[in-house]
Amino acid sequence: MVKHQINWSLVDQLRTKNPIILTLANLVTIDKVADAVSAIGASPIMSVEVNEAAEMVELADAIAINLGTISQQQLMQIKATLQEANHHKPLILDPVAVGAVPSRMKIAQSLLTEFHFDVIKGNASEIAALIGINGKSHGIDAGTVPNQVQIAERCARQFHTIVILTGETDLITDGQVLYQNPFTVEMLTTNVGSGDMLSSIVAAFAGITTDIWDACIVATVLISAAGVLANRYSAGLGSWQVQFFDQLSIMNTNSLLDFLEESEEDYLD
Amino acid sequence: MVKHQINWSLVDQLRTKNPIILTLANLVTIDKVADAVSAIGASPIMSVEVNEAAEMVELADAIAINLGTISQQQLMQIKATLQEANHHKPLILDPVAVGAVPSRMKIAQSLLTEFHFDVIKGNASEIAALIGINGKSHGIDAGTVPNQVQIAERCARQFHTIVILTGETDLITDGQVLYQNPFTVEMLTTNVGSGDMLSSIVAAFAGITTDIWDACIVATVLISAAGVLANRYSAGLGSWQVQFFDQLSIMNTNSLLDFLEESEEDYLD
Amino acid sequence: MVKHQINWSLVDQLRTKNPIILTLANLVTIDKVADAVSAIGASPIMSVEVNEAAEMVELADAIAINLGTISQQQLMQIKATLQEANHHKPLILDPVAVGAVPSRMKIAQSLLTEFHFDVIKGNASEIAALIGINGKSHGIDAGTVPNQVQIAERCARQFHTIVILTGETDLITDGQVLYQNPFTVEMLTTNVGSGDMLSSIVAAFAGITTDIWDACIVATVLISAAGVLANRYSAGLGSWQVQFFDQLSIMNTNSLLDFLEESEEDYLD
Repeated sequence: MVKHQINWSLVDQLRTKNPIILTLANLVTIDKVADAVSAIGASPIMSVEVNEAAEMVELADAIAINLGTISQQQLMQIKATLQEANHHKPLILDPVAVGAVPSRMKIAQSLLTEFHFDVIKGNASEIAALIGINGKSHGIDAGTVPNQVQIAERCARQFHTIVILTGETDLITDGQVLYQNPFTVEMLTTNVGSGDMLSSIVAAFAGITTDIWDACIVATVLISAAGVLANRYSAGLGSWQVQFFDQLSIMNTNSLLDFLEESEEDYLD
Repeated sequence: MVKHQINWSLVDQLRTKNPIILTLANLVTIDKVADAVSAIGASPIMSVEVNEAAEMVELADAIAINLGTISQQQLMQIKATLQEANHHKPLILDPVAVGAVPSRMKIAQSLLTEFHFDVIKGNASEIAALIGINGKSHGIDAGTVPNQVQIAERCARQFHTIVILTGETDLITDGQVLYQNPFTVEMLTTNVGSGDMLSSIVAAFAGITTDIWDACIVATVLISAAGVLANRYSAGLGSWQVQFFDQLSIMNTNSLLDFLEESEEDYLD
Repeated sequence: MVKHQINWSLVDQLRTKNPIILTLANLVTIDKVADAVSAIGASPIMSVEVNEAAEMVELADAIAINLGTISQQQLMQIKATLQEANHHKPLILDPVAVGAVPSRMKIAQSLLTEFHFDVIKGNASEIAALIGINGKSHGIDAGTVPNQVQIAERCARQFHTIVILTGETDLITDGQVLYQNPFTVEMLTTNVGSGDMLSSIVAAFAGITTDIWDACIVATVLISAAGVLANRYSAGLGSWQVQFFDQLSIMNTNSLLDFLEESEEDYLD
């Protein structure tokens, strides 16, 4: 880890700059994503109408594309959005369930062929599927995938992008350098939408800095920290969710650094 | 009641077997349903795309069909799903608002004619409407319907299915045997989505056992227990929801049996 | 302010009369709106199908139209709904993001030309846009708009309606009389969906009284009171949301009047 080089002040900057983040969303988690984006200090916008694509892109500082409830209709909107935004605005792809659903895999492949994404965020079976490896997913959840570092690096190189591969240890790589985030709790997996929130929060940070690498790391660690801290005071899924949104909404650069300092001892000892 | 014969160990088995549950969902409650399915230890998947129907059925261990925000488009997806799944996977129907909205009634009737559902879950006015009795519903809520046991039994016999008729006392019947669940609290009615969660949780248990009767009872009692326990520590709708998801996520066979033992005294004295 | 003339007993009456409220909803906040409508004692119904429009209007005591995730498909449903309901049922318009998205502005204008709304609820940039003033919005959030009272009054006169312009002070006007609600907290802005809940709660009160003016004031003050009270016991967005729904579900006329009495000293001193 190279923590000292990372620009953790992005957490505070986000609240000041208040970027507008467009998510073409998973309908299952659209409310949680909007709340999460708002909690960290950005302004969420959503749309389901292809004719709004150009206007939405113009408003947005960064864009997250989520395939969680992809339909033919939403695909048209996604393509219209990407045609406007490609190489103009930071683009994040969340290829939900491409490891489990072949038709979604084809959609993801066609998007990755036509457009350039700055970041791809997925679990091990999703990232493996994108480079042609059958990751034996379990529904929308990751199954057991070996060699995750190599898979993440290959995916990053193949699509000239940064890959965030989430799991027990989150891997972030541009194909050369690897950052590992060891902080996690099981509730981040049980809670539906943790991954969707991460991809839109990555977009939020990518909306205020040209350093997409730092945006990825800060977003991933921020979500993890909120999840771990929430776990300390919760008795189950409901109270964890409450604490998680509390943490997201009060976190600042200092409290995130405090978390890192005290937690690294726990995790790395 | 024949509690001693019911396989309450399904609550623990569900967390081990982690079945994949497809819900063609009510958009109003899609997030709550996903969280509830995940909280009890199953893996929720959702889809809004007709072309994914076959792939989703193949992944799923059981399927819940919810008419809460039915559209022409979703109906096509539902039919494609049912054509793949009919007699192959456990199927649960939640005919939301068929007691109030005649066009939904027609849709439910056409589905029940073409396909076989293992379980139909509804409130009194919905179940009454399915067998041609005008139950005087109040919007999506049940109105006052007399003779609920007979209505549930007739519906079960007519559609060769198990009926769960929810209300002050939940009735579960296959047309011959009747199980009554007396445990409830008003918050289960005030909270939008309690019924939607129940139908998908029934699907979850039907995904791990061929004994659909036990699946129905365990699911219904589990939701009730979580609702009643949540009520003890909550000050209103918000905190009740938190406690409810906490309870769903921590409940196991032993704690459910403890609840039954201590509660039956309260309810049956 | 003319508090003594306002019929605050509507808060209690709502729980007794239990009106059915149809919202053609913003998909981002559809669950929160349903919960809020249910929490205050009304019955929420939702629909996304144009063929259900006439049946839904017949069931509904009042209708809220929300443009938050407007699509060509939903627009057809909205128009079919309004054709049935125009001048027959109380109609509330929530023109989400018309200050930021020109194509939504055109949709709102066409609806306002063809149909009569009893209430328009928006933030300053939305209300300004409706009368042709560029309010410099920030995404879906209001930007800095001067002369808000004049803008609200002009909008009310132009569309023969009551305008609720939400902000640091909420302005309610029919173009002649002005009511100002000073009670607010930042969380009402951070929480995605506060405005959507308000427009459907206005519909709920408009569903039980012909005095739409009082319905607007009671709804606006009720949401504000719940938000302010929630803020006293919360540590961030998550716990604020919990407390907010708790407050909505337990508020009655007496507790709302208590809030007003004790709070006016704080705000007006």
